[in-house]
Amino acid sequence: MNKTIETILNHRSIRSFTDQLLTEEEIRLLVESAQSASTSSYIQAYSIIGVTDPDKKRKLAELAGNQPYVEKNGHLFVFCADLYRHDKMAREKGVDITASLEGTETFMVSVIDAALAAQNMSIAAESMGLGICYIGGIRNNLNEVSGLLETPEYVLPLFGLVVGHPANLSDKKPRLPLDHIYHENAYQADEAEFKKHMSAYDETISNYYQKRTDGKRSDKWTDQITGSLKKPPRAYMNEFVKGKGLNKR
Amino acid sequence: MNKTIETILNHRSIRSFTDQLLTEEEIRLLVESAQSASTSSYIQAYSIIGVTDPDKKRKLAELAGNQPYVEKNGHLFVFCADLYRHDKMAREKGVDITASLEGTETFMVSVIDAALAAQNMSIAAESMGLGICYIGGIRNNLNEVSGLLETPEYVLPLFGLVVGHPANLSDKKPRLPLDHIYHENAYQADEAEFKKHMSAYDETISNYYQKRTDGKRSDKWTDQITGSLKKPPRAYMNEFVKGKGLNKR
Repeated sequence: MNKTIETILNHRSIRSFTDQLLTEEEIRLLVESAQSASTSSYIQAYSIIGVTDPDKKRKLAELAGNQPYVEKNGHLFVFCADLYRHDKMAREKGVDITASLEGTETFMVSVIDAALAAQNMSIAAESMGLGICYIGGIRNNLNEVSGLLETPEYVLPLFGLVVGHPANLSDKKPRLPLDHIYHENAYQADEAEFKKHMSAYDETISNYYQKRTDGKRSDKWTDQITGSLKKPPRAYMNEFVKGKGLNKR
Repeated sequence: MNKTIETILNHRSIRSFTDQLLTEEEIRLLVESAQSASTSSYIQAYSIIGVTDPDKKRKLAELAGNQPYVEKNGHLFVFCADLYRHDKMAREKGVDITASLEGTETFMVSVIDAALAAQNMSIAAESMGLGICYIGGIRNNLNEVSGLLETPEYVLPLFGLVVGHPANLSDKKPRLPLDHIYHENAYQADEAEFKKHMSAYDETISNYYQKRTDGKRSDKWTDQITGSLKKPPRAYMNEFVKGKGLNKR
């Protein structure tokens, strides 16, 4: 197994960083790494906003559900789906591409582009000994986040990515059984297999929490996730995204 | 610069592979690498379908716009947004999570989850000396693709990823200027800067094509992209995704 795969398999989200900031050189290398990811038909439909302003970081930490590591880290990146530049350059050529920009297909492309870039940055950071954590919490209130970051139409902040020097290593969290995620030639929806995978995984997760909390927690994955999806998360999202000009048709 | 970052920066899509198939061990290591990516609130909302059946591969290659490398490669993976398992396990607990599953927020989460996993797999593959290419072309006709792969409700095939031993190395394609993708503290929509970036990049791309084609092509990026967005790509997508139970509200 090579070093890169070791880095990938060794991933855990880091939620506690030292005060050491990333250097300008590190930041540029991380952005360059992000940019090297594949992009759908060369569209490059994303942008990255680095946030260093302490007031903005504090505010974003609050908005993301009072997560202190959104404020205290080596650097905070916000990844955005971005079709603003495409609109602008088409307009300058006198071409109207609104119908494309508003389509769900193009929206998906921009979300995928941003995510591929972010994961490249994550692996690059981890290969440098840095820790990372994705911050989906910025989607709690995208109206305020967009205002804070001054994003124009056709730009949608998707998630933050905090990067920094780890103060505490967390444990690696076990994933679903490989044979549950990975199917061959056709989607396997066999009832008995499904139950077998789920109960095996629930046991794995339950053991993981018991060990990590000295027996205080023993959550099962299926209970955790069912609980978190009982109430629709961020139910404003559909309208908000459409308000940005995206995913409308 | 470490090996991992070298691998990341050295990325180019490979569209020509030798006949050598990936081994079972390589496939499992790649899937494990994919699974190690971050996942939003531990939701793990994606699946991967490995396609080895020659008829299915041929058919997928056709559907993806007659791309021969979709048929001839070391292995073909199809990444899907997947909330089927979440629905199923909630039902078994007597909990109705339909409103969550149908939300644009949860749809975005599943697309992001799948993309992060895919990019992990890509980097892992490239670190092993393999080449990769994303196949967005499967979205040309998701109805047929879904039928072929037998995906149930709440599962949406997003893209293929072909992996294999490169037969031909392609060139690395230059990305947008770093300062255009990367903003500090707020989105920079300055008119003059925008124009400067675009014309510098158009020149870079034009030179790139000239060199690559002995002067036969000299496309500019802004023309390419404007051209490709003149007509809405895959305009059926909005309805199709909703038909799968996703992105409805």
